[in-house]
Amino acid sequence: MKVLVVIGHQPPGSFNHAIAETAVEELGTAGHEVVYHDLYAEGFDPILPADEIPTDAQLDPVVRRHCDEVLAADGYVIVHPNWWGMPPAILKGWIDRVIRQGTMYQFGPDGIVQHLAGRRALVVTTSNTPREDELQLYGDPLENLWKNCIFGMVGVEEFTRRNFESIIMSSPEQREGWLEEVRQLVREIFPPA
Amino acid sequence: MKVLVVIGHQPPGSFNHAIAETAVEELGTAGHEVVYHDLYAEGFDPILPADEIPTDAQLDPVVRRHCDEVLAADGYVIVHPNWWGMPPAILKGWIDRVIRQGTMYQFGPDGIVQHLAGRRALVVTTSNTPREDELQLYGDPLENLWKNCIFGMVGVEEFTRRNFESIIMSSPEQREGWLEEVRQLVREIFPPA
Repeated sequence: MKVLVVIGHQPPGSFNHAIAETAVEELGTAGHEVVYHDLYAEGFDPILPADEIPTDAQLDPVVRRHCDEVLAADGYVIVHPNWWGMPPAILKGWIDRVIRQGTMYQFGPDGIVQHLAGRRALVVTTSNTPREDELQLYGDPLENLWKNCIFGMVGVEEFTRRNFESIIMSSPEQREGWLEEVRQLVREIFPPA
Repeated sequence: MKVLVVIGHQPPGSFNHAIAETAVEELGTAGHEVVYHDLYAEGFDPILPADEIPTDAQLDPVVRRHCDEVLAADGYVIVHPNWWGMPPAILKGWIDRVIRQGTMYQFGPDGIVQHLAGRRALVVTTSNTPREDELQLYGDPLENLWKNCIFGMVGVEEFTRRNFESIIMSSPEQREGWLEEVRQLVREIFPPA
């Protein structure tokens, strides 16, 4: 399989990076072809300009490449921290620019045509809010955003999400356990060919 | 009152701009002091760098000014389209960078200290999804994000949101009616001194 891994978090050496690198490693071990994007490291520009909205717009080559990679992939691994119940702006802008109407989905006479149908996705997020508070106070917005608003829109129905918390309170042993869980999830969702 | 108006949408001449300009006009008529930010027009950089996270970080002067304006304001009007159940990345990044821990809220021994308590907010959003679908399929994420995750976190309890839809299907008469509704909402929430 071809799997696209995207991380939207700043500092190299962060636990988010450990998660993404663990996923990349496990995917490689399973024999999959991996495309990896560290949006901060690459300086991805998250601002969708007005002239990029038309479905026949002349695309920035970087955005064009991202679109082609999304279309060519059999699955996705997304890694980011929970900032205000949403991804960091750099990843929000990757969604705005890359998950394009007319490319990833379009409105047809019989409803929405979903061009990513049949793909699978794993979204791994991190936070410091206790799980109970996240569910009771905020309703865990990231679950709905990724599952229904984003991947649901483009036809990715095989969807798994795992949130690790609290990062700030975690021990090295706990974090090692979480990385092991990432390895297991990756093996289950993207089994060796 | 001092009121901060922030719009996160691209093209001048859009209905979002008409909403924001209507709010600014009505606030001025009511005798309020208005600070207006069109994030796209100003080229606001939405990417939070790692070294800006510490509460004692040396801030970019633009971010410092935005923070000062948020703290000095008695209320907020936010205007943006619904993109994937979230604000456009440029506005998401304004939240990431400006609604800073240690400035707008902080974790104290007795819980969260909310530095924007007592302020009021009006969030006006636009979309093309029929209202029923938005509620049933997606749960209207913007309501929860703005009300609970963002403004609730910093103590803004007097919160009003209005979504106008479907923009793409609307007639000029309908849009004029919506702008009149914006005028009424602004008058109610920010009455003349």
